[in-house]
Amino acid sequence: MPVLTFAEKYIRKKIGKNNPLAGLKVSACLHISKETAVLIHSLHSLGLEIRLVAANPLSSQDDIVSFLSDEGIQVHAHKGETVEEYNNEIVQAAKSRPDLIVDDGGDLHVAYARTRLDSCFGGTDETTSGTIRLRALDKSGKLRYPAIPVNEANTKHLFDNRYGTGQSAVDGLIRATGLLLAGKLVVIAGYGWVGKGVAEKVRGLGSRVVVTEVDPIRSLEAKLDGYQVLQMSDAAKIGDIFLTCTGQIDVINSSHFKLLKDGVILGNVGHFNEEVDTRSLFRMGERVEQVRENVAKIELKALGKTRSVYLLNQGRVVNLVSAEGHPPEIMQLSFANQLLSVYHLVTHRKELARKKEKLIPFPPEIDDMVSQFALEGFGLKIDRLSKRQKKYASSFTRGSA
Amino acid sequence: MPVLTFAEKYIRKKIGKNNPLAGLKVSACLHISKETAVLIHSLHSLGLEIRLVAANPLSSQDDIVSFLSDEGIQVHAHKGETVEEYNNEIVQAAKSRPDLIVDDGGDLHVAYARTRLDSCFGGTDETTSGTIRLRALDKSGKLRYPAIPVNEANTKHLFDNRYGTGQSAVDGLIRATGLLLAGKLVVIAGYGWVGKGVAEKVRGLGSRVVVTEVDPIRSLEAKLDGYQVLQMSDAAKIGDIFLTCTGQIDVINSSHFKLLKDGVILGNVGHFNEEVDTRSLFRMGERVEQVRENVAKIELKALGKTRSVYLLNQGRVVNLVSAEGHPPEIMQLSFANQLLSVYHLVTHRKELARKKEKLIPFPPEIDDMVSQFALEGFGLKIDRLSKRQKKYASSFTRGSA
Amino acid sequence: MPVLTFAEKYIRKKIGKNNPLAGLKVSACLHISKETAVLIHSLHSLGLEIRLVAANPLSSQDDIVSFLSDEGIQVHAHKGETVEEYNNEIVQAAKSRPDLIVDDGGDLHVAYARTRLDSCFGGTDETTSGTIRLRALDKSGKLRYPAIPVNEANTKHLFDNRYGTGQSAVDGLIRATGLLLAGKLVVIAGYGWVGKGVAEKVRGLGSRVVVTEVDPIRSLEAKLDGYQVLQMSDAAKIGDIFLTCTGQIDVINSSHFKLLKDGVILGNVGHFNEEVDTRSLFRMGERVEQVRENVAKIELKALGKTRSVYLLNQGRVVNLVSAEGHPPEIMQLSFANQLLSVYHLVTHRKELARKKEKLIPFPPEIDDMVSQFALEGFGLKIDRLSKRQKKYASSFTRGSA
Amino acid sequence: MPVLTFAEKYIRKKIGKNNPLAGLKVSACLHISKETAVLIHSLHSLGLEIRLVAANPLSSQDDIVSFLSDEGIQVHAHKGETVEEYNNEIVQAAKSRPDLIVDDGGDLHVAYARTRLDSCFGGTDETTSGTIRLRALDKSGKLRYPAIPVNEANTKHLFDNRYGTGQSAVDGLIRATGLLLAGKLVVIAGYGWVGKGVAEKVRGLGSRVVVTEVDPIRSLEAKLDGYQVLQMSDAAKIGDIFLTCTGQIDVINSSHFKLLKDGVILGNVGHFNEEVDTRSLFRMGERVEQVRENVAKIELKALGKTRSVYLLNQGRVVNLVSAEGHPPEIMQLSFANQLLSVYHLVTHRKELARKKEKLIPFPPEIDDMVSQFALEGFGLKIDRLSKRQKKYASSFTRGSA
Repeated sequence: MPVLTFAEKYIRKKIGKNNPLAGLKVSACLHISKETAVLIHSLHSLGLEIRLVAANPLSSQDDIVSFLSDEGIQVHAHKGETVEEYNNEIVQAAKSRPDLIVDDGGDLHVAYARTRLDSCFGGTDETTSGTIRLRALDKSGKLRYPAIPVNEANTKHLFDNRYGTGQSAVDGLIRATGLLLAGKLVVIAGYGWVGKGVAEKVRGLGSRVVVTEVDPIRSLEAKLDGYQVLQMSDAAKIGDIFLTCTGQIDVINSSHFKLLKDGVILGNVGHFNEEVDTRSLFRMGERVEQVRENVAKIELKALGKTRSVYLLNQGRVVNLVSAEGHPPEIMQLSFANQLLSVYHLVTHRKELARKKEKLIPFPPEIDDMVSQFALEGFGLKIDRLSKRQKKYASSFTRGSA
Repeated sequence: MPVLTFAEKYIRKKIGKNNPLAGLKVSACLHISKETAVLIHSLHSLGLEIRLVAANPLSSQDDIVSFLSDEGIQVHAHKGETVEEYNNEIVQAAKSRPDLIVDDGGDLHVAYARTRLDSCFGGTDETTSGTIRLRALDKSGKLRYPAIPVNEANTKHLFDNRYGTGQSAVDGLIRATGLLLAGKLVVIAGYGWVGKGVAEKVRGLGSRVVVTEVDPIRSLEAKLDGYQVLQMSDAAKIGDIFLTCTGQIDVINSSHFKLLKDGVILGNVGHFNEEVDTRSLFRMGERVEQVRENVAKIELKALGKTRSVYLLNQGRVVNLVSAEGHPPEIMQLSFANQLLSVYHLVTHRKELARKKEKLIPFPPEIDDMVSQFALEGFGLKIDRLSKRQKKYASSFTRGSA
Repeated sequence: MPVLTFAEKYIRKKIGKNNPLAGLKVSACLHISKETAVLIHSLHSLGLEIRLVAANPLSSQDDIVSFLSDEGIQVHAHKGETVEEYNNEIVQAAKSRPDLIVDDGGDLHVAYARTRLDSCFGGTDETTSGTIRLRALDKSGKLRYPAIPVNEANTKHLFDNRYGTGQSAVDGLIRATGLLLAGKLVVIAGYGWVGKGVAEKVRGLGSRVVVTEVDPIRSLEAKLDGYQVLQMSDAAKIGDIFLTCTGQIDVINSSHFKLLKDGVILGNVGHFNEEVDTRSLFRMGERVEQVRENVAKIELKALGKTRSVYLLNQGRVVNLVSAEGHPPEIMQLSFANQLLSVYHLVTHRKELARKKEKLIPFPPEIDDMVSQFALEGFGLKIDRLSKRQKKYASSFTRGSA
Repeated sequence: MPVLTFAEKYIRKKIGKNNPLAGLKVSACLHISKETAVLIHSLHSLGLEIRLVAANPLSSQDDIVSFLSDEGIQVHAHKGETVEEYNNEIVQAAKSRPDLIVDDGGDLHVAYARTRLDSCFGGTDETTSGTIRLRALDKSGKLRYPAIPVNEANTKHLFDNRYGTGQSAVDGLIRATGLLLAGKLVVIAGYGWVGKGVAEKVRGLGSRVVVTEVDPIRSLEAKLDGYQVLQMSDAAKIGDIFLTCTGQIDVINSSHFKLLKDGVILGNVGHFNEEVDTRSLFRMGERVEQVRENVAKIELKALGKTRSVYLLNQGRVVNLVSAEGHPPEIMQLSFANQLLSVYHLVTHRKELARKKEKLIPFPPEIDDMVSQFALEGFGLKIDRLSKRQKKYASSFTRGSA
């Protein structure tokens, strides 16, 4: 992950001897993978004190947890923890009087908002879901420190959400089920960056794709990208595999379950396990059986027929639970943004504290920096505008007709 | 073009009896195609008086010019006019004391800025190039009326620039040359919406694609979309076909010409014929021969070898000169935005006149309206958010973990 | 077309001074395009006397006809000739006592079979349709000379039928209609090499594709290639555009016409204008109007609704009538096979005359030769098997476990 | 796997009471996966006595071995057995006086040929490699019983080799390495059905693909399919990932290792671990380290630089070792052919025994049967030729011009 290394080196060079990061306490809530370990290692080696908890009860890799503990990081997580354990660890991380919060999904920010602490002077979050929650906290006056929505970095959402999730969701789907994608009809709910990425990769492996959307422009894009666009109530009747990529709740719900064909597969790619209404699904199920490690078979009786529905990972994010999450080539971009955002919060602390709106726009200079690091990391050499071209770019005398 | 029809109907319903459009004078500078005829017809039938000139000396379709003249529209254009004729017609259109300017590329806005008239109270332009020029005029204080950058509508640039130009550029390339695209190495300069669209369609017909870019993020996108990313000085040595999609000048210039392989094809998809430095190319050419209707063969001696370079349409926009421009399914979106922007300028005349900045952001309500019309026009039915989902979309209590 | 040039050079080198081709009379029935002109020129310059007629009433390019006449070739064809003229020219070419027949579609072979002449000592045909007809003639004892089915060359059908027709059919469709392919539902009837090629290119431009087939294995291939596979009676209800690629009759017939949506487009990519049952279509039509150069609008009343159907080129092959046929890069392969087959027939005349079966397998040495010429023509350098690898290729002791 | 079930049912219905299969001894050498278990179960339930050994020392799944043993099948295999154990089990299976041999790769046939037994009256093999070896045995007079090359079934090689290996090779590659495929340059050696399938899927996930080939026609296909075609000595210098799909030895060898970039990945998709010359690779390596479960890092010093090469699965077939082999949707086709071939050998025993050539063409009636079962299994309904169309298909009077 050279891009993260470049970011760390940049900070290291900047901070010099009076390291402003030294001794600051960070509570971090992240999916605990080998890539996360590298970010945590960077933060730690820059002098920050880390308390790390999981961003999902099922996504922690236990060997990474051990590794980080051995390195002297406080980690409170393990794969397959209960929801109570999971929530409790987040609450404890919030209550530990952090100076900074680094989050993935917003659970830690929300938990901190529920405390009366005033220790925290800045936070970050790297997901679409987390950004939505930070915005909601800000609107209701509950965000008490400046927060950077890392997902809004171009070098984050254009890459992580599209290429990272695209590959890892397909990877998770194949590992979980062992099925052939060629010839299947895959329904992708949501055509944001994540849905776009997943649709493209699934098609790349030979599936036909149906897209469902609530946004008119994204619907038209999906259609002109060559996908069939349907309402979920129609897609439910014909799909072989369903993947939710919306950030919404109940995208596939009890009104759809009864329409499904026998043997369909339901998986979720979104942050929360609420996109498929699993509560209703289990309630409607006559029989539930775990048929592969990450696959539950649920028998439904509906409309006079018995059919089987296969649910992946209890409705939790398929790329992190059934596969290993995003590839390192992608995570380095997201984490370089996280790392530089933490540094930005520390070095701009006073200036940011004065602002009324707490959720600040993503600093474009970080995006620029990460994109330059990325060019180098990916080994790309690109053209530069000449002086004449730069002038032309802002001139109205262009066009010799 | 039902989307344009819906827009016209919407306006017709709104204006009622005291038609505020009646008798207003519009100078329009557009590529004169059958789709344009429908827009002009709509404007005309809504009571506007139109003076239409060409947006490119080579792009006018003479039968459409005749048709519009017969309908009583003032049209001053013909296919293959000289640059002098072309410029003169624009100047005359600017000097005709228009109330409104409808432009494609900004030539008419620039021509009006050079007059001392104060007749015009609003303008539009539908291209990236035009937007850049309007911005430059505005910055230098020479834009004297509110102008709407139609290209910034999502329902314009996401569709017209990508799918419209994507198909029509490939169409123009094949009609001009008759060559097989499968197996060719095509160099696409620029990976904005236009470059993205063209790259995708060219690949869809079996070409390998090399992308050149000056923007780091677009370069990374191109790489992860599966294209090779090179500097033009390297791409020049290996490409079979070159298509410029940048909005810049001299993207392929004399430093590149001498590196080209024998028999390569140079075409431009951008608005102006400046992306390939044709002046230098003709100056360097030992012999020039018109080998097909839209193909000039130029023999160069360079680096001790003689090689032939084939230039399409004298470097002018390949999809409009060698083919018929964008398909109507796409143009209806762009033109519905144009039409509703004209109506917006008239109905918000006073309010807009008070604003200091003249280049205004594209009105989102027009984008929303066009996207709804487009759903209907394309026959799409999509899901709607439930109340519960709408609430969830702005809530921080999401995520049951 | 360097591959054709290499083939001509090869023959020229072989024939030496006593040219066995000199003065032999060839009757040729081909689509008269610029590529055909090059083949005819090669045959002519090798000493053969050519009489050329058209392979389709609508596919002749008049400037090429003039050019060939000026070169001293007997050409009897013009674009848009009547069916009577067309048939008569073929009959005359058959009756002209040819030594050899070079055909595309089999019309000339069938016409010759109906004469009582014994002048002809060999023939070729380059299409699937022609091969089927030659086989039928042979079975019924009516093929009186050895004939080479050029379509069976790998260097012909793998390239011409797939990549050549793939691009040129899409080109013809766009030129004829001007429509956007992105987002359309295109029904491809037949998934042989032609259907495979057309489906791939249409998808490459953003269409969804439905395939209809009668062969189980091809149907499964289509499904696993990511297309929807339906019976025509179901596809008829949902398609926007239909392209027949089967070599069969009545693939879209009166039972389907009444199921079509309003505004659909019907085109044919097969050799004969019998794949869409145009006779029934015109009979069922209430009104017929030519709305673009190659598009007829036919109004049907069926099932209580009036709908419009747009027929391309009167049901004749869309890539030759609306576009310029295959690109030269492809035709050079097919025509090199034709040229070398003619030479083969002359040099193996005695030996072939003794064979009982007249339709002979395509000579593999020609295929090998053309593939070597093609490597050179396309500038490809490829690996060669080492001695050790050659031995391994036919050994049973492979596999060290 | 309904297709296999249909085949079993068909046989069960045919055999009636005097089951000719009952008690026959089958020695089978197959990759031991869950799909194989179903085939073995079918053979067993039809009355055959099975002795099963592994087709690769690393591909056996131990839980399946246990499951089959519990079912009463003789299985001699475990994952990670030594080459000595592996070979010994095959030799024992050959010596066990089988009536029939069912093989994957030909090891068992070769082992039997080295015995002097005359027990065996028929055999099958399902791979390209096995077919080559059977042909070599036959030519040298060492094949003493009729053998059916199952790979030659259209319902086998068109599906198993292309779609099955295509997906499972990509799956194995991602599981083994965890890397992002988007933006990588992947070199595919060999463009047969396997190489075609792998290239397509790798491209579908966003990689650029370079193909190396020794066959001119396949090279041209690869080029026109949009891949770059190079000699391995050039590809070696630029590739990020290499996958061999050739059935040859030493495709990547010591002359190439020294040209590789630092950090490249070498994997094999072919049957034998000889395509990458691993012996030379390990000999050239200064240091070897196992960095992930299936990835060895080998440090090479060559041309004055140290570089790391990552070898997957010791050069053994990546889709079986790092992933779970082909999906069941595909294996059912291959195994239905195996099952019906065994039945064919038994029911045609006498007739086949009389033939001189022992390697017989694949019986087309089995292919037809499996394709019909597959239509049903995949839920496809397709068109049938009408009487008129059937007649047309073999008529020379087609074409009304």
